[in-house]
Amino acid sequence: MSKKRIGIIGATGYTGSELVRILVNHPGVEISVITSESREGESFSDVHPFFKGICDHKLESLERIDKYELDAVFLALPHGVSMDAAKRFKDMTFKIIDLSGDFRLNSPQIYEEWYQKEHVYPEGFKEAVFGLPELYFDEIKRARLVANPGCYPTSAILGLAPLVSEGMVETSPIIIDSKSGVTGAGVKPKAVNLFSKVNDNFKAYGLGRHRHTIEIQGVFDRLAGKDTLVQFTPHLLPVDRGILTTIYARPIKAVNNDELKKIYGEFYKEAPFVRLRDEIPAVKDVRGTNYCDIFVLFDERTKMLIIVSVIDNLVKGAAGQAIQNMNIMFGWNQTDGLKMVPVNP
Amino acid sequence: MSKKRIGIIGATGYTGSELVRILVNHPGVEISVITSESREGESFSDVHPFFKGICDHKLESLERIDKYELDAVFLALPHGVSMDAAKRFKDMTFKIIDLSGDFRLNSPQIYEEWYQKEHVYPEGFKEAVFGLPELYFDEIKRARLVANPGCYPTSAILGLAPLVSEGMVETSPIIIDSKSGVTGAGVKPKAVNLFSKVNDNFKAYGLGRHRHTIEIQGVFDRLAGKDTLVQFTPHLLPVDRGILTTIYARPIKAVNNDELKKIYGEFYKEAPFVRLRDEIPAVKDVRGTNYCDIFVLFDERTKMLIIVSVIDNLVKGAAGQAIQNMNIMFGWNQTDGLKMVPVNP
Amino acid sequence: MSKKRIGIIGATGYTGSELVRILVNHPGVEISVITSESREGESFSDVHPFFKGICDHKLESLERIDKYELDAVFLALPHGVSMDAAKRFKDMTFKIIDLSGDFRLNSPQIYEEWYQKEHVYPEGFKEAVFGLPELYFDEIKRARLVANPGCYPTSAILGLAPLVSEGMVETSPIIIDSKSGVTGAGVKPKAVNLFSKVNDNFKAYGLGRHRHTIEIQGVFDRLAGKDTLVQFTPHLLPVDRGILTTIYARPIKAVNNDELKKIYGEFYKEAPFVRLRDEIPAVKDVRGTNYCDIFVLFDERTKMLIIVSVIDNLVKGAAGQAIQNMNIMFGWNQTDGLKMVPVNP
Amino acid sequence: MSKKRIGIIGATGYTGSELVRILVNHPGVEISVITSESREGESFSDVHPFFKGICDHKLESLERIDKYELDAVFLALPHGVSMDAAKRFKDMTFKIIDLSGDFRLNSPQIYEEWYQKEHVYPEGFKEAVFGLPELYFDEIKRARLVANPGCYPTSAILGLAPLVSEGMVETSPIIIDSKSGVTGAGVKPKAVNLFSKVNDNFKAYGLGRHRHTIEIQGVFDRLAGKDTLVQFTPHLLPVDRGILTTIYARPIKAVNNDELKKIYGEFYKEAPFVRLRDEIPAVKDVRGTNYCDIFVLFDERTKMLIIVSVIDNLVKGAAGQAIQNMNIMFGWNQTDGLKMVPVNP
Repeated sequence: MSKKRIGIIGATGYTGSELVRILVNHPGVEISVITSESREGESFSDVHPFFKGICDHKLESLERIDKYELDAVFLALPHGVSMDAAKRFKDMTFKIIDLSGDFRLNSPQIYEEWYQKEHVYPEGFKEAVFGLPELYFDEIKRARLVANPGCYPTSAILGLAPLVSEGMVETSPIIIDSKSGVTGAGVKPKAVNLFSKVNDNFKAYGLGRHRHTIEIQGVFDRLAGKDTLVQFTPHLLPVDRGILTTIYARPIKAVNNDELKKIYGEFYKEAPFVRLRDEIPAVKDVRGTNYCDIFVLFDERTKMLIIVSVIDNLVKGAAGQAIQNMNIMFGWNQTDGLKMVPVNP
Repeated sequence: MSKKRIGIIGATGYTGSELVRILVNHPGVEISVITSESREGESFSDVHPFFKGICDHKLESLERIDKYELDAVFLALPHGVSMDAAKRFKDMTFKIIDLSGDFRLNSPQIYEEWYQKEHVYPEGFKEAVFGLPELYFDEIKRARLVANPGCYPTSAILGLAPLVSEGMVETSPIIIDSKSGVTGAGVKPKAVNLFSKVNDNFKAYGLGRHRHTIEIQGVFDRLAGKDTLVQFTPHLLPVDRGILTTIYARPIKAVNNDELKKIYGEFYKEAPFVRLRDEIPAVKDVRGTNYCDIFVLFDERTKMLIIVSVIDNLVKGAAGQAIQNMNIMFGWNQTDGLKMVPVNP
Repeated sequence: MSKKRIGIIGATGYTGSELVRILVNHPGVEISVITSESREGESFSDVHPFFKGICDHKLESLERIDKYELDAVFLALPHGVSMDAAKRFKDMTFKIIDLSGDFRLNSPQIYEEWYQKEHVYPEGFKEAVFGLPELYFDEIKRARLVANPGCYPTSAILGLAPLVSEGMVETSPIIIDSKSGVTGAGVKPKAVNLFSKVNDNFKAYGLGRHRHTIEIQGVFDRLAGKDTLVQFTPHLLPVDRGILTTIYARPIKAVNNDELKKIYGEFYKEAPFVRLRDEIPAVKDVRGTNYCDIFVLFDERTKMLIIVSVIDNLVKGAAGQAIQNMNIMFGWNQTDGLKMVPVNP
Repeated sequence: MSKKRIGIIGATGYTGSELVRILVNHPGVEISVITSESREGESFSDVHPFFKGICDHKLESLERIDKYELDAVFLALPHGVSMDAAKRFKDMTFKIIDLSGDFRLNSPQIYEEWYQKEHVYPEGFKEAVFGLPELYFDEIKRARLVANPGCYPTSAILGLAPLVSEGMVETSPIIIDSKSGVTGAGVKPKAVNLFSKVNDNFKAYGLGRHRHTIEIQGVFDRLAGKDTLVQFTPHLLPVDRGILTTIYARPIKAVNNDELKKIYGEFYKEAPFVRLRDEIPAVKDVRGTNYCDIFVLFDERTKMLIIVSVIDNLVKGAAGQAIQNMNIMFGWNQTDGLKMVPVNP
């Protein structure tokens, strides 16, 4: 069988390099083109020297993409830029997986409210499918345009989806306290991701107004079939990659830990990347992989549920999940090219 | 005025070395004796080589402490060992500041339930004062035996005390999500504090059963004048020192952010180490100092309160607070010897 | 073709888990047995929870290894223990790759001098081949017992071998200043690998007497055909994995940088894991991979050569190189199962 | 006695904030003015929020400095900018301590060669004194303009000065392999000091051409009374602050370790900040302090000398040494205001 031809739009960020890291060893694909406007003409390994001898593709302008016959493209572009590319590609037959936030929310109106930006391609919302395979496998399989979920939302939604779907928790509000590695803040140098500001340090940010709040809440609304309320607080960890999310929810009625395990086991029985853990997971347990490890506890003393989930924000939270979506869209096994083992330590 | 003579019981842990770090530059005291059973006969700077030329005291056995005339002793001993020393010293006139958890809880019974250990000196609870100066200044001033608060409780209680005292928040439960540096786990090598287990990593632990839960809840009970319920989750940060606590509470009635600032400002108007911040603080903002920085927010969308507090777990969470208590017990200015500036970066 | 059956002797250390990390995705092998004396009866993923669902082999005692038909075994045991296993296996037909230091030196006498321990299997030195494929490919191909090089020696020898082989540098002494991640110190908790001792810290150790000195010098002696002298200083980096070695040598006669590149290019033209770099490499450029990246410079001002080489100490410095050796011993492509891309960041 | 009035020129960098950190607790001074062109009008604690309540000075333009009567000013400006200020202040009577590299070298010509920049105030070289108190105490005492040494040079020169001064080592070349924390690269966000580029990483840079090479060599030339040759390689550590320098030198004749200790002890007998150590020091042993810890070894096997020295690059390598110089210039005790204890861990 001939290999599927892949385009990667946007080469300089972390999602771009993670896509290439995984795709170069994927048995079903070949990378046809990688684009970059700012580094056009240089090679991919000029931008990311550790790829020397592994991927030395010459970077091209998006303008020149039409000369390639492609089966799928990944949009590894910033929010607000990705929608331009999606619009440009609206009549193309290749499959599109957008790693930005431009098509994840429930409507263009909500987008404009939370991203404070006019949406140039509102029609895209009609066809875009939220690319969380553990919830929307069938829609993804049929989609042309997939909106790959945010990193925080992936960890939060997978952590609580079984209970929200079953109507087992009160949803006003659900407390979601997340801690992320620095790569979530992007590759561009700024005070917030400077070594001396992050190392041996820790802080919260975006209290009450981070955009992933509405992305999580939008999915919970659909799962619960009613309005939910999410209180989401992100924090910045002095680690490169990894998100740990601690979720606090009040069950509608008391539930024991065996029942919880059964519910989660059933819900994720066909999800090869969700691992239910008997001990509390750490972010390094999934580093470099597409796993989401989950631990669930009902606290008898307080009658509260506490859920801890971990992912690698660049893999299950971005590039790995995008490739999982691609596998599904091509009708392949979800785990193709994604059998990495955690790099730990 | 002659200097007060100080004994430090327990030299090998982090609290012991932090006490010495601060006390050697304290204008009102001199360190008379430092004890260690495991390293008796060696010098303090053999155990902690970075003290060479700064503090080279020869370590002595606790047995030999009677030959010193002391004005105050700090117990820098593990939980369960400290109560033996407190009992031994029960008829001594010097002041005692105990940095362990042995006298912090509301009764010996609660201690035995949460520490799973029989208490050898239950009488101590009668005289022990919970040494959080921002709440119990007057009692501390009169005390002979002060139970220095735990690190997590210091950050959590200071973060919410103004609202619990005023009866402004629902207390069933209060969600307290804390993240601590590794020194909180002690100096003894074990898997949990190994570099390769902690570096570039992050995890939760002790869900629903950490002992500081009941310490926090016990103080809130007293402040609120009724039973409260605390849901406390500790996490392990890849940093040496520092605790950031994120608190979620539902206000009894809506409150705006100006009112909140006023309440906190009033409550802490005579607290020189509490800094109310206009932006979210980071743990490095207080590193090496006795400050507790607090940020408070009412989220209009969710009607929830979110409070973030940071301390250095070895200073305001241990040795610094102990010395603040000593200053109060001696009738000195609270800030004597504690005017350190954050070491940042 | 049926898969080769592999035994891994020693499961609890970092080399054991790295071997499994790589071998589970190696197309030519299956892991038949993993042994551990201390954790016998538990599963591999009990010891290393991040392997859950990936490798759940039950750990067995070395005593029970005879019931397996094996094609190769890896000895992932401490120095001084490995030689017992090698002796036990002396009449077995399977291939042995020993990751310890027990058979790396030029004679049992030198071993006993530098390791301060009697060698129980001196006969092993007769058949043991030093497993650095870039130098000893042919011998490795024919070997039954391979002594996998130490981590520091791998980085140092690859960095200078082209020049020592050509007799281009003075060798009395060669200055080798190496900096290693903490995993080189082993998995056992002790003061030296405690987070708070290593984080935000850096130190030298073993000045003038580290065992890898004689391993490096022994290889240089053979390459140069005469006695050499190595001044080797190891340092401990606050990173999990990675070694960077800075080498200072005086050339016999002046040499320009183009000539240097040509010499290195020629020497390593058939070495798929050596990457000659035009800019100075960093340890993260090779993280998780079997690459050794090298940068060479002749300083016109001082007439000195400076070489910088980086490896992942657990991969090219241990498990990856061992698997590279296995590939050669089985007549396979050197890169089989070793096409990992650096995990960076 | 009235306090000396201090001006700090340049507020936004690390040296500016370290100067303030130390000076606010210095018994002999008061900070009269802090300048910043880029943040004029804001408060010092707006720029460095952890100074809130400690130093809230309003930042002023350098233009307005004439309205203050000052006893000393610190120039905490970038290289190439500092010389403008020095020129501007050439007729002022206050003492000047310049923390930049603009007046450290042996002549304006050497400056222009290594800094690739024309010097606007070559006359300054005539009066500037190299501010390393352990070598040039008397000159500093009489100076109006002190050129505070670079961070790497401080660690390298203190490490070898006793032997170079005595003519005990060969000096062609001396190998100086230094490893520095990230704050040495400045506060401005750029790729090189981004968290994800530095964390869990390590690299060399500036091979053969770093400007501190000539600063070290210039001092060694003067100490030796002849031309020396320095091979200096800097490396970037994933730590905030701290430099460890490993020096390799060949002694003119064999020397034993007792003799070495005696020579160093004699040379530094009046140097309160140099600590000769019996074990190899680590950078955290001096964190936050003005100490330089030194370890010396003669390797009998190789007949080479190995010296390890550590400093805090922001204190003994910058602000602390500047204040030590100020103390000397005012005729005070060198240690005034500098009795900080290492913050460790």
